[in-house]
Amino acid sequence: MKNIITISREFGSGGRSIGKQVAEKLGYAFYDRELVDEVAKRSGFAPGTSRSTANMPTPATACCSIWPRPSATATTTSPCTISSISRRARSSRSWRKRASASSSAAADYILRDRKDCLHVFICSDMASRARRIVERYGQTPKAPEKRLAEKDQKRKVYYKNYTGRVWGQAQNYDICLNSGALGVDTCTDMIVQLCK
Amino acid sequence: MKNIITISREFGSGGRSIGKQVAEKLGYAFYDRELVDEVAKRSGFAPGTSRSTANMPTPATACCSIWPRPSATATTTSPCTISSISRRARSSRSWRKRASASSSAAADYILRDRKDCLHVFICSDMASRARRIVERYGQTPKAPEKRLAEKDQKRKVYYKNYTGRVWGQAQNYDICLNSGALGVDTCTDMIVQLCK
Repeated sequence: MKNIITISREFGSGGRSIGKQVAEKLGYAFYDRELVDEVAKRSGFAPGTSRSTANMPTPATACCSIWPRPSATATTTSPCTISSISRRARSSRSWRKRASASSSAAADYILRDRKDCLHVFICSDMASRARRIVERYGQTPKAPEKRLAEKDQKRKVYYKNYTGRVWGQAQNYDICLNSGALGVDTCTDMIVQLCK
Repeated sequence: MKNIITISREFGSGGRSIGKQVAEKLGYAFYDRELVDEVAKRSGFAPGTSRSTANMPTPATACCSIWPRPSATATTTSPCTISSISRRARSSRSWRKRASASSSAAADYILRDRKDCLHVFICSDMASRARRIVERYGQTPKAPEKRLAEKDQKRKVYYKNYTGRVWGQAQNYDICLNSGALGVDTCTDMIVQLCK
């Protein structure tokens, strides 16, 4: 039984869209960075620094305090969006109870000891990602490939600093999907299937 | 349409078993290192050094000459078993036609430009892998974790030297599956589903 799905992604890989589709198909709640920040604010929990998850409450209880806040730089550059989806959290009206969601850049690491999590990584080839960010966010003076390379580097460094592990290394996840090769919808279906 | 599936694996992850199961379920031929070596020998093609795949023949034609032979060290230490499965090759009686199979440690790299390939990486946690190699190959004076760490290091170095890429990095594959978390049978089913 997977109560939580963490989706780490390369910028422009469609990981966020996949997360939303998965949540919709499974009837899970979907959380992204903005919501989690609000949860933390309303609950009175400042995202803390503890890395321990051994005594974490169940997904339906508040646990914002253990989520690490990305550094100021990381926040503004969104080093990695993690969509965390909790089946039980959806039925709760409490903001604090919805705190099982995390937009941390290292949710797979933070929740690595929990057996009720599915850890997903979504990546894609550079050409598909470049096309996607131009479609979604428009052109900028900077070439999309350069924007992506900069994002990748920041996420890689952030993840390494926080976890000591290599970002995007298959061993850190339960499943890694290349959305450029497989397609966003196929990735969604595969995750849904694993949770059913 | 995926005519070839390459399965790269961590030692002890069950990748070879998964490859065999996939081949059986899809009606594909299954090749491992030993068979490919024999193909190369009988066909008169010495595994060559070219890395180019741009002008590769279709899977059903001979192409052993472009497969790189792992170095003497790499061969004896089996840096990575790649199972390559060709639908069309199965119906052929010709050894040379079966040369579409490769047991190279870097098949994902060699065949990276082909659109009819599915590139898979199978990994697992250390405890599951240690258990598996003891069950399969027995105990040795060396602890299984140490045997695995040495294998991992050799595969990593070999792959890096040959491709310039990081071994097990999600971006190099279409799908990466953690057999320890998902189970061997689930991994098989997911690959089969992607090819149907």
